[in-house]
Amino acid sequence: MVTRGIIIGRFQPPHLGHLEIFKRILREVDELIIGVGSAQESHTLENPFTAGERLLMLVRALSEARVDLTRVHIIPIPDVHNNAIWVSHVVSLSPPFGIAYSGNPLVRRLFKEAGFKTRTPPMIKRKEYWGHEIRDRMINGSDWESLVPKAVVEVMREIKAVERLKELSKTDYLLG
Amino acid sequence: MVTRGIIIGRFQPPHLGHLEIFKRILREVDELIIGVGSAQESHTLENPFTAGERLLMLVRALSEARVDLTRVHIIPIPDVHNNAIWVSHVVSLSPPFGIAYSGNPLVRRLFKEAGFKTRTPPMIKRKEYWGHEIRDRMINGSDWESLVPKAVVEVMREIKAVERLKELSKTDYLLG
Amino acid sequence: MVTRGIIIGRFQPPHLGHLEIFKRILREVDELIIGVGSAQESHTLENPFTAGERLLMLVRALSEARVDLTRVHIIPIPDVHNNAIWVSHVVSLSPPFGIAYSGNPLVRRLFKEAGFKTRTPPMIKRKEYWGHEIRDRMINGSDWESLVPKAVVEVMREIKAVERLKELSKTDYLLG
Amino acid sequence: MVTRGIIIGRFQPPHLGHLEIFKRILREVDELIIGVGSAQESHTLENPFTAGERLLMLVRALSEARVDLTRVHIIPIPDVHNNAIWVSHVVSLSPPFGIAYSGNPLVRRLFKEAGFKTRTPPMIKRKEYWGHEIRDRMINGSDWESLVPKAVVEVMREIKAVERLKELSKTDYLLG
Amino acid sequence: MVTRGIIIGRFQPPHLGHLEIFKRILREVDELIIGVGSAQESHTLENPFTAGERLLMLVRALSEARVDLTRVHIIPIPDVHNNAIWVSHVVSLSPPFGIAYSGNPLVRRLFKEAGFKTRTPPMIKRKEYWGHEIRDRMINGSDWESLVPKAVVEVMREIKAVERLKELSKTDYLLG
Amino acid sequence: MVTRGIIIGRFQPPHLGHLEIFKRILREVDELIIGVGSAQESHTLENPFTAGERLLMLVRALSEARVDLTRVHIIPIPDVHNNAIWVSHVVSLSPPFGIAYSGNPLVRRLFKEAGFKTRTPPMIKRKEYWGHEIRDRMINGSDWESLVPKAVVEVMREIKAVERLKELSKTDYLLG
Repeated sequence: MVTRGIIIGRFQPPHLGHLEIFKRILREVDELIIGVGSAQESHTLENPFTAGERLLMLVRALSEARVDLTRVHIIPIPDVHNNAIWVSHVVSLSPPFGIAYSGNPLVRRLFKEAGFKTRTPPMIKRKEYWGHEIRDRMINGSDWESLVPKAVVEVMREIKAVERLKELSKTDYLLG
Repeated sequence: MVTRGIIIGRFQPPHLGHLEIFKRILREVDELIIGVGSAQESHTLENPFTAGERLLMLVRALSEARVDLTRVHIIPIPDVHNNAIWVSHVVSLSPPFGIAYSGNPLVRRLFKEAGFKTRTPPMIKRKEYWGHEIRDRMINGSDWESLVPKAVVEVMREIKAVERLKELSKTDYLLG
Repeated sequence: MVTRGIIIGRFQPPHLGHLEIFKRILREVDELIIGVGSAQESHTLENPFTAGERLLMLVRALSEARVDLTRVHIIPIPDVHNNAIWVSHVVSLSPPFGIAYSGNPLVRRLFKEAGFKTRTPPMIKRKEYWGHEIRDRMINGSDWESLVPKAVVEVMREIKAVERLKELSKTDYLLG
Repeated sequence: MVTRGIIIGRFQPPHLGHLEIFKRILREVDELIIGVGSAQESHTLENPFTAGERLLMLVRALSEARVDLTRVHIIPIPDVHNNAIWVSHVVSLSPPFGIAYSGNPLVRRLFKEAGFKTRTPPMIKRKEYWGHEIRDRMINGSDWESLVPKAVVEVMREIKAVERLKELSKTDYLLG
Repeated sequence: MVTRGIIIGRFQPPHLGHLEIFKRILREVDELIIGVGSAQESHTLENPFTAGERLLMLVRALSEARVDLTRVHIIPIPDVHNNAIWVSHVVSLSPPFGIAYSGNPLVRRLFKEAGFKTRTPPMIKRKEYWGHEIRDRMINGSDWESLVPKAVVEVMREIKAVERLKELSKTDYLLG
Repeated sequence: MVTRGIIIGRFQPPHLGHLEIFKRILREVDELIIGVGSAQESHTLENPFTAGERLLMLVRALSEARVDLTRVHIIPIPDVHNNAIWVSHVVSLSPPFGIAYSGNPLVRRLFKEAGFKTRTPPMIKRKEYWGHEIRDRMINGSDWESLVPKAVVEVMREIKAVERLKELSKTDYLLG
């Protein structure tokens, strides 16, 4: 019987810490489902990239790291703003799975109440592996490329990500 | 002609102050409609309980207090995020009513513009009768049971409410 | 431990067949949850009554039949148009239950896949106990009152139900 | 005090019959609100034009007919799929009004229950003044231009309406 | 070929600064589309007026300023909470346009990515021309009438705007 | 520059005809995006399988056919019930693409109006390659396995698909 685990993040953007976590989980389960959360969000400072762009970054990064793609499923998951139905929503969009990995107590609680096994994913030490930090560096022009897989840098170039972030960060002159 | 009043709260959880208000209103009207607001919210620190759980707490508490259940209607009311249609939304889910009780100026205003009589419900003095305070005590392990009806304590036990709240209050280690 | 069963219908309107089914189920479980389905529907020939009106008819009919109201919960359930999350939606709005009663194979299937016991409710013979038949009679002016509890007739009068149905049945002259 | 009336249609497309109705109503009220219903629908055989395109056709046609535009408000109205809140939805999108004109019994009923005066708009005889007929003619290549205001023909040309309709009418080869 | 520009604001309420901007844009384009954003919001301190009320204020103000109404389209635009589809949403509700005016970098970015020309609207100096300031003055009873067109003051009186704002600003006594 | 094409279907279930189409398109583009349409539908006779189940069938079938998974992206796409924003919705969930393959005139029209190249996918002759036929055979117990990839048969077994379909096909005894 195939064992499948799921992990859900916003991946704004995916970074080397995420990649390391994926690899470690793939030592514990046969297949990993990566849920791209808040899929409906994009073009804000907190959530600059669309679900499709994040999915492309993830698949490129996994491919570059020679992860076997037959063992990974990447799935956009829009928010539902109703915790009581959220697990069913995830289940409906995903291949069947048995274990939910999350560092978020709410997510673990919801999966647990729905009868799933839950695990806290291995923690990656470096505090730069953090979406907020990476987005800030992209705006400020300091080094962010060393924090993400090379393949992510390439997708960023293809979609002109730095330009988008810089524009979004301009001070608003509001119509009021 | 039957007179009916409505009162809407989140009841996270119902407490002795609510029960006292219900009793006083029932001296003024024939029937009371209790709207369980933000019905779609659950499993957060602000809104830990589902609408169904809150409804069960309310009916148990009223029954324990020997309130005549033929005179009370308890109705889950999901948010609509559109104030201009909110009263119609409430009306569609509820038996016909003529008086809206609320301590919230927005709610009173909306009902008033829609042609309803509005009243401010009798204020209950003790400041511990407050959902936020009760939820904090449940997490901190101090006495909360004295602030709610016994029947509510029992439902809390049935649904393992304290465990849920404690888990939800853990510091997040975010995937980032 | 309290056993609870749920049954979901549209109740457009509640009739004597429904009442008989409720009574029989109440011999099998401690408490019965009556879900008023398609709660958001009203003012059409198929679904003329609001959820609140149907709820009032149900509670009046149960009260008239001397059913113990502490053993019954009546809950409006809006459609979600997503079968895979529908059971979670129902669960979130309802007190905890273990058995789902339904004559609808889809509903039974959904509850079964979610881990609930399911039962087919006792069938009531008379074919007039059918919402469609009752609504037709209300429009045509033939006897419908004998098919529903007396309390339902009274609520119908209070909300001018026959007038509403007759108006809705008029041939449309469409603006095109 | 200004008297305002509202009339709601889908206007797929606006035709000479509509224009005649608008003119007659404008003899009865100071200002007319034209609600462009099912505003979210477009690109189907039944609803080929977007709300914005329909709005443009209406304003051009009214302008061409020398109707005083300070006396008319044109407003897109998306469906809400909940009759009980529909009137509030319309009210929130529209300047205040007192009279609702509709040939549809459901619409008149909803406005009436909400406390509005309702009137059946004057009927225009010619049966070609019918959206379905006009859309068919556009697809079949027979004369449709004589059924709509000249200004509508011009907007149709600007948005390449005939081409769109013809393409939408092609038999589907479904992916299955 | 007609050139059309669009500008989107919340207009809570429209003020003299807005009117000045409209006039200047109308020197650059043939027609101006005014999008009334967050159309679903009303009855809060930040967004006190319904879309319909704001639309009425705008049309009255434009009419009073002798702007040619055949050159202006006013359109309520509800939020969609999904930036990636927002431009399509606006396009579907509006007559075709080529230029988007906005002082908001996010809005300009979204239109730019969708292939539209974007322009920053001319800035109006006086800092009192700001919705927040005007709403505060309406509550505090200081002069607000000098900041908005006379026609807006009249609509405010018709809808009892000051009374609404004052009521909404009362300190909440929460049911808790 | 990478060329990407998208094809969207419901895949209830994926069959040998789909697989053949995918292979042919992969000779024309570098990467293929497979959109799993009506992702929110499941558990009906027309749409028995969840988006996650369909995604699993697709990835297994592609893997079995030795299609290079780094060249394929499989993405659930929920309906939006608004044609004018549908393309933006698809774009937001998908890696960037330039060509849309569809046998559906509406879909081709929508992509064309949004500026995409469109192509009609190669037609596969055998008329059994049709979801409706396959679902019927699963219910009737006649041979369906020969119409789908072996890997799909295996996933069907894992999720007990035949049992689900047979149950859903039972005649309803409606509660009325």
